[in-house]
Amino acid sequence: METETPPRTGSVGVVQTQHVELFRDGPPLSLDCGATLAPVRVAFETYGRLNADASNAVLICHALSGNAHAAGRHAEDDPKTGWWDNTIGPGKPFDTDHYFVICCNNLGGCDGTTGPSSIDPKTGRPFGLTFPMITLGDMVRLQKALVDHLGIRRLMAVAGGSMGGMMALQWILDYPDATAASIVIASTPRLTAQNIAFNAVARQAIMADPHFNNGNYYDGPRPENGLAVARMMAHITYLSEQGLHEKFGRRLQNRETFSFGFENDFAVESYLSHQGSAFVKKFDANTYLYITKAMDYFDPFPDPETTAQRLKRVTGKIMVMSFDSDWRFDTSRSKELVKILNWHRQQVSFENFSSTHGHDAFLLDAPLFHQSLASFLKRHYIETTRGNSPTAAGSADVA
Amino acid sequence: METETPPRTGSVGVVQTQHVELFRDGPPLSLDCGATLAPVRVAFETYGRLNADASNAVLICHALSGNAHAAGRHAEDDPKTGWWDNTIGPGKPFDTDHYFVICCNNLGGCDGTTGPSSIDPKTGRPFGLTFPMITLGDMVRLQKALVDHLGIRRLMAVAGGSMGGMMALQWILDYPDATAASIVIASTPRLTAQNIAFNAVARQAIMADPHFNNGNYYDGPRPENGLAVARMMAHITYLSEQGLHEKFGRRLQNRETFSFGFENDFAVESYLSHQGSAFVKKFDANTYLYITKAMDYFDPFPDPETTAQRLKRVTGKIMVMSFDSDWRFDTSRSKELVKILNWHRQQVSFENFSSTHGHDAFLLDAPLFHQSLASFLKRHYIETTRGNSPTAAGSADVA
Repeated sequence: METETPPRTGSVGVVQTQHVELFRDGPPLSLDCGATLAPVRVAFETYGRLNADASNAVLICHALSGNAHAAGRHAEDDPKTGWWDNTIGPGKPFDTDHYFVICCNNLGGCDGTTGPSSIDPKTGRPFGLTFPMITLGDMVRLQKALVDHLGIRRLMAVAGGSMGGMMALQWILDYPDATAASIVIASTPRLTAQNIAFNAVARQAIMADPHFNNGNYYDGPRPENGLAVARMMAHITYLSEQGLHEKFGRRLQNRETFSFGFENDFAVESYLSHQGSAFVKKFDANTYLYITKAMDYFDPFPDPETTAQRLKRVTGKIMVMSFDSDWRFDTSRSKELVKILNWHRQQVSFENFSSTHGHDAFLLDAPLFHQSLASFLKRHYIETTRGNSPTAAGSADVA
Repeated sequence: METETPPRTGSVGVVQTQHVELFRDGPPLSLDCGATLAPVRVAFETYGRLNADASNAVLICHALSGNAHAAGRHAEDDPKTGWWDNTIGPGKPFDTDHYFVICCNNLGGCDGTTGPSSIDPKTGRPFGLTFPMITLGDMVRLQKALVDHLGIRRLMAVAGGSMGGMMALQWILDYPDATAASIVIASTPRLTAQNIAFNAVARQAIMADPHFNNGNYYDGPRPENGLAVARMMAHITYLSEQGLHEKFGRRLQNRETFSFGFENDFAVESYLSHQGSAFVKKFDANTYLYITKAMDYFDPFPDPETTAQRLKRVTGKIMVMSFDSDWRFDTSRSKELVKILNWHRQQVSFENFSSTHGHDAFLLDAPLFHQSLASFLKRHYIETTRGNSPTAAGSADVA
């Protein structure tokens, strides 16, 4: 008796972060601020297999606090999976039975790619604030060098949420011939005054920490209090008011009545404190400064002339996805991007998903979002690769 | 030839802050936390004249960062008027030709009323964090003592915006016989998880400042960096995204191009920095801690039984006013309050005003809001005082 097999979804399993040093020979990495960097180390992971004509590669761009470890586990008994494990794997939207998925830590990061905590070869000491100011364009330029290094001429897709979505957009603008599709999720064509204001306060909190020491803190205590405040504040903007209400409301934390003191009375306070202290253990304060500034600067469509100029060579597909309770990058920001792209005759599709999870919804289990993401990728895969899959089983599934 | 005289609106002129020491004799001020305070100094101002039967008194409650100086100037050449000067004065909504307007600095404040920066008579040193935890109920209890001291048995109205609105609500619940009307503006029946979260981060920023020293900073440098971060973050929540966009957008501050450094690139950053540094010159960090905690605790209607109990003796009128771009205390918070009051058969009126100014709209020139506020007060005044005005001219105007 034959039964229909349900779609297999699984894990990419145990994975290793790889490292490569780029710009060792030849010209250095040129940055938008005018400075250069060389060499530049990049931490990256890959999932799935590159097909024969290297036409099935998907680049995932991480957001402010992400890293190269997007899927799987680093050991069999690793309790934590990568940050976007629910979308990357066999049978998942970024289907590793068919696509070759790449994720790298961003330039300026603190998880294996060259950033302000890296050693400056000129001085033998960490860069700190002598690290050059970077832009999302620079971060994408380094990703392009990695993609070239991996022997991929054209990405089947670049995808990302939040700042990763801005980078996916930057890719199709800067490398139109190398980007067959761009998936821009929970993102924006530019930061608003309110977004910039929150970033500015976050930086102020870090720089006001006495351990900040103008960025030279790697030999001593780190500006953890300032970074925790920055993270806690940002975290509020990642969640919707309704989501916070449903999760915490005014519930007290392990107590029957008010403390009438300055302990954490409410569960939401304890939750935020935990978010702050967990974050400072794994993240570098200088990276936070550089990356928020790079986001502030992002503005690919400052005026109609520049917009027309930047979009005229774009031929790839663009998918824009937003969440209705996201108030960090409101749905109206995605709609504005769609309008710009439509007016410039781009192949753009748009979906707004219902969620109570705010900005963070793109990281969570959201079946309708995953379904749309999977469908967009599959259709696009069939069109662009003509079924040239790394495995026969894989291509049969898709076809 | 006779012409119609336009409504005269003017200033209350030069005013002085007065001080009184209450709870000097007799029982001390009892606080909700169980502690007591005595004596308690109160800074207050009054505008207009109390009528013969003391029936025209209006109490104004200030918000987190306000003080007793609500209207007029402290000297002829004082460049600054009181914080709500656009609503208080001859011909203005709180019409001092007819009403006797009172405003006092809140308990726990830092502008003349006893608070954590006051000298503890027991030790001869500032209270700091030995100051008892206070609630909005305690703050209103002190206001009631001041109103008693002024010989007023029943307030014609209590009004306030933001936290002041919560206090106006607390008044009619705690002193139903002494409150003929309560005007609750840009406020909420309770803080949401998101509101509490922002307050928690603000306190964290203050307490993380190395100058905080567990609240004992009055002899040395003050935790100005932490307080500035707290204020800057809160300030973002006082303004609407649209308001910030219209005022600043992505405009650069005195520069043509990006700094590619950590200076303030954008005008909104400079504006916020200015808000932070101006605030720390006039406000006490410990007061910020105590008052935000008092707001967190405010929850007069925690369950249906308590709500019914608290509202059953209320006979005064309640006016609820909100602004559509306010996201600190969203219009839906005011609507929830109106629903609770309606369900408990209260005389409640409600208006939601259109504005791009967010939470701060109640402090700004908003003609429609002022018109409704003035009309509510005038009708109520005629009903409650039977025209027993302090001046004949005044009552003629109203009638």
